[in-house]
Amino acid sequence: MSGAATFDPRDFRQALGAFATGVTIVTACAEDGTPVGITANSFNSVSLDPPMVLWSLARNARSLPVFERASHWNVHVLANDQEAMSNRFARAGEDKFSGLALDACASGTPLIPGCSARFQCRTVFQYEGGDHVIFVGEVIDYDRTPSPPLLYVTGGYALAARKAGAIATEAEAEQADAIYSENMLGYLLGRAHYQFVAGFRPTLDKHGLSDTDFFVLSLLSVRQPLSSEEIAVHIAYTGADIGLVALQSLRARGLIEPDGEYGGGTGGWRLGARGRDAILHVLAAAKAVEADALEQMDPMEAVVLRNLLKRLIAVTDPGLPKLWTSPLGGEPAA
Amino acid sequence: MSGAATFDPRDFRQALGAFATGVTIVTACAEDGTPVGITANSFNSVSLDPPMVLWSLARNARSLPVFERASHWNVHVLANDQEAMSNRFARAGEDKFSGLALDACASGTPLIPGCSARFQCRTVFQYEGGDHVIFVGEVIDYDRTPSPPLLYVTGGYALAARKAGAIATEAEAEQADAIYSENMLGYLLGRAHYQFVAGFRPTLDKHGLSDTDFFVLSLLSVRQPLSSEEIAVHIAYTGADIGLVALQSLRARGLIEPDGEYGGGTGGWRLGARGRDAILHVLAAAKAVEADALEQMDPMEAVVLRNLLKRLIAVTDPGLPKLWTSPLGGEPAA
Repeated sequence: MSGAATFDPRDFRQALGAFATGVTIVTACAEDGTPVGITANSFNSVSLDPPMVLWSLARNARSLPVFERASHWNVHVLANDQEAMSNRFARAGEDKFSGLALDACASGTPLIPGCSARFQCRTVFQYEGGDHVIFVGEVIDYDRTPSPPLLYVTGGYALAARKAGAIATEAEAEQADAIYSENMLGYLLGRAHYQFVAGFRPTLDKHGLSDTDFFVLSLLSVRQPLSSEEIAVHIAYTGADIGLVALQSLRARGLIEPDGEYGGGTGGWRLGARGRDAILHVLAAAKAVEADALEQMDPMEAVVLRNLLKRLIAVTDPGLPKLWTSPLGGEPAA
Repeated sequence: MSGAATFDPRDFRQALGAFATGVTIVTACAEDGTPVGITANSFNSVSLDPPMVLWSLARNARSLPVFERASHWNVHVLANDQEAMSNRFARAGEDKFSGLALDACASGTPLIPGCSARFQCRTVFQYEGGDHVIFVGEVIDYDRTPSPPLLYVTGGYALAARKAGAIATEAEAEQADAIYSENMLGYLLGRAHYQFVAGFRPTLDKHGLSDTDFFVLSLLSVRQPLSSEEIAVHIAYTGADIGLVALQSLRARGLIEPDGEYGGGTGGWRLGARGRDAILHVLAAAKAVEADALEQMDPMEAVVLRNLLKRLIAVTDPGLPKLWTSPLGGEPAA
């Protein structure tokens, strides 16, 4: 706790940052027609009837005189892909509108395209607010798009992911301290993984592929030829111990074939005709499972989930050889 | 586009919802000492020097007279796990403070614990804002916690995932159209899962447990006794086909033991002394892997990752029996 009027500005700002916001750009026009615009996250709705919104502008902002005199201003709620636009209008000095294609607006106020929502406002009140001026406007027109919004949370840009219900709501709180709870990351990862694989397991079964067979074929679909040792090293993290018996079984079924030229004659493996056909069918089925699952989720959730799985993979990476950094079929990493 | 004053209230509200916000509860005290509180997302910061914040309250709110007369009010920025608290204070009529343990506050205003941030304010201005009153307060004290905040976006609760960080590398972007790419959800899930398990595989090995053994023991650590059929049904989604041979092998190793009383004498299984010991060690190791991984990530990322895995599990759920909805050791679901 800090005493009044002795707040550390940085710490106070961080506390305020705990309140998540969207990001807006507010624009207006000077009397000589010069457009002004500024990035603000101090926007909020005020009234439904009449429709009113507000935002605050620092008293020392260069554009303050223009906003104080303007009869109209437009608020643009930025979409998730407009981070660069946010940064452009947050900086002072440069011509922020340079090269920017604007939409037509009845009041002549700049109207930026590609936003999640836009509110065209008529100034109604200007209120005192310490080192800021609070602008209250009546919304005279608005529009919106399905584009998910950009967020600003605890000092950085963020994306929103809709909050999921618990898998077993009532019981969850009770067993939060249990040794094995449904909040355990290992449980969630395992269940998500195995349920996902279950979606294309019929295709694995149809081609007579075990999980281990699938690991080998999908590996070779990215890089081939690979030696027996390289295959074993790439797959060891799954717990599968690929020995010569397993590889000979794959060969006997026409799924892989030897590549005697590889590695200076020590031999390697590449997909056989049957293996290529099988893995294409399995990967197509996996893509269908993915499409089906993501269709039931928010588009932004898919983006965020992929990013977070990549983060988790990075922090738990035991130092696996990089699979995708060389072109397909090229020499594998040493 | 809609014309002024003819907005459809529902559509206008949805457009306003494109602007993401945190969720706050604002509290005050009536002259007779009765506490009032209301959920509001119309909060925002106004001024740094002096420190000021604002929020708006509907003119028809039952608590308006109390807030109009109160010299002080507290704003609570809710944490991601305070959705129930938000709902409690959003409803009218009931005693919102019933059973709620409050923190001490110099002004006597209710101070709710467990929030991301709290601002104790002295009323400075009350401004007209259409069908709402805008309250501006000077912050006289505040505190904050590292708990990631709850969000409200496009009409629903949400969580924030930091945007910077896990962004695709150039190599990833290039092969986005390949049949098997690093962006395939199945690949990311599998790799994240197996890398995670690899972190505690030494503990599995030490206790001589296969992946399938681990599935059975962790299942029984949540619910027991279970019949052979129930075990098979619970685990089928992993692709493991648990037959009597597998169960007898677990029994021979002292990991599980028969419960003849179960299911009217048809028999069931519970953890043996060795099984209980083994699964406790494995789960402790899994928790250590989790703690280690999450320590390298943002707290918000951990919350969002769990949340999104639950969403994915829900949309790919083949209709598994609920594991946690009955107390441990109670009768399993039919």
